Amino acid sequence: MKTQKEYIDIINKAVAEIPYPESPRGLYEPIAYTLDCGGKRMRPMLLLASCEACGGRIDDAVSQALGLEMFHNFTLLHDDVMDRADMRRGKPTVHRRWNESTAILSGDAMLTMAGQLMSVAPDDRLADVMALFNGTAMEIYEGQQYDMDFESRQDVTVAEYIEMIRLKTSVLLGCACEMGALMAGASDEVRKAFYRYGVALGLAFQLQDDWLDTYGDPAVFGKNIGGDILNDKKTYLLITAMNRADDESRHRIESLIGTRSDEKVAEVKSIYDRLGVADECRTLIESYLAETLRELDSIDIPADAKAFFRDYAERSITRQS
Amino acid sequence: MKTQKEYIDIINKAVAEIPYPESPRGLYEPIAYTLDCGGKRMRPMLLLASCEACGGRIDDAVSQALGLEMFHNFTLLHDDVMDRADMRRGKPTVHRRWNESTAILSGDAMLTMAGQLMSVAPDDRLADVMALFNGTAMEIYEGQQYDMDFESRQDVTVAEYIEMIRLKTSVLLGCACEMGALMAGASDEVRKAFYRYGVALGLAFQLQDDWLDTYGDPAVFGKNIGGDILNDKKTYLLITAMNRADDESRHRIESLIGTRSDEKVAEVKSIYDRLGVADECRTLIESYLAETLRELDSIDIPADAKAFFRDYAERSITRQS
Repeated sequence: MKTQKEYIDIINKAVAEIPYPESPRGLYEPIAYTLDCGGKRMRPMLLLASCEACGGRIDDAVSQALGLEMFHNFTLLHDDVMDRADMRRGKPTVHRRWNESTAILSGDAMLTMAGQLMSVAPDDRLADVMALFNGTAMEIYEGQQYDMDFESRQDVTVAEYIEMIRLKTSVLLGCACEMGALMAGASDEVRKAFYRYGVALGLAFQLQDDWLDTYGDPAVFGKNIGGDILNDKKTYLLITAMNRADDESRHRIESLIGTRSDEKVAEVKSIYDRLGVADECRTLIESYLAETLRELDSIDIPADAKAFFRDYAERSITRQS
Repeated sequence: MKTQKEYIDIINKAVAEIPYPESPRGLYEPIAYTLDCGGKRMRPMLLLASCEACGGRIDDAVSQALGLEMFHNFTLLHDDVMDRADMRRGKPTVHRRWNESTAILSGDAMLTMAGQLMSVAPDDRLADVMALFNGTAMEIYEGQQYDMDFESRQDVTVAEYIEMIRLKTSVLLGCACEMGALMAGASDEVRKAFYRYGVALGLAFQLQDDWLDTYGDPAVFGKNIGGDILNDKKTYLLITAMNRADDESRHRIESLIGTRSDEKVAEVKSIYDRLGVADECRTLIESYLAETLRELDSIDIPADAKAFFRDYAERSITRQS
């Protein structure tokens, strides 16, 4: 096994070496711009690591790793158009820097390029690769649709929220972990366990994101603390608070919808505190971490590989950024 | 070989039987809406016909036929967002009937569903199927990008225009014809000849579209005659006219850009007539038909299959709608 940083360096090198056609520049420049913007490279990193954990070589899976990173960045690009987001990773989004048509078309091309990168696989594995990749992509679109549907709904349950983030975020981590095992020629059983590891990890990861946005350390967290509260985003914290609040607190939160002030953040946070929402969130994160580690325990891989995936999961829920 | 209508009936039946998940409805309803809107079903029809021409069965290729129709409709859906088009085939476009986010996300899902349908292939053919499908898709995005680039350029040459329509329109017909042969297990040589047949046919077809928009019979043509002139669309006719016009005619056309009146259509048409642009267009269409038929002649398929593809090509350039 390599270190996390070594895997990420391999990805970044592969990203830098993608051979884009010279023209039309309007199509390919925004793609290079999007991929060069960085990001955690979490998905391709997990993919390469699970491939090596199962006895495969980096070369067996680097195309799929790149394909998954391409796909992930495509979803961000199109989500930013749908959400009318101005900035991503400290730079203007593609539809701001160029225009909306460019963002749509370049995103489409990224999805097809992801499919091309996925297809670089032995004949006897290709059907499984495509089924895993395409099936995961469909779930992610479903998750995005539910997320958009939730914006105009006031009765979203915690169970619905968890299902939404499972689809929108977690299955792609499951796909990454399973894809690496698949490319290494691992058994069906190992593949499925890696998938479940990734999905449970993804749930813990997204809930940590929700928690950090309100309770993170402003000195370490990349974005402004309280952004979700300001934007009335239906996170685990808000949904849980609305479920447990008495009428007065609920009406208070409802009356603040659409407003934007530091006082709003402070007041909603104090309601969360009174209701014990943060503790409940931490408990749920811990339970998904436990599930993640249980799945990992069941996989027959070398001790150093187990340590790698255990450390990664544990750090995911203690991270501050 | 079956008749054109029999192939189309098979496609329409397959389209009607696509099993959409129940939810989220916001994702799947616009897809069914788009596919049910009809259209010529030209691409899947050619695909099934070339499969049978090469000795294959309908069942060998119906998934790819459906996948190509899904892909084609995805490009129309996203193009309509980029072009801000209100209507398509007599019904409101998806971004008008729902909203833009829905159009983007449902389109993305259609592209992935097209990939899923393509993947239903034997292991030893799957890599070829994916390479042909994805490579064609990339060319189509390039064509769309050039088409958008041309809107703000006044110096587009005929050669650039032909290359743009080759990418945006023709290669998908080439892909359809080759895919059918591929699924039937035809030789590389036959596959490539079918591809060239489809590309040449596509060029003739698109130029016929350009010609019809100005010179079609209003009683038969589905849309209003002169729409391209009204919208200053850079068609073969306009580009050729601008190339051959004297300064006075060129300035007259330029002075009409951005205006919309029956007089504009009549005046631009009279300039076309004076310059012999329509005749030049017909000559070019005939030469692409000749190329189409030459490619067809080189393919070793039964006489009834040859007759089918010859009739189809000939009718494509005499059609009035």
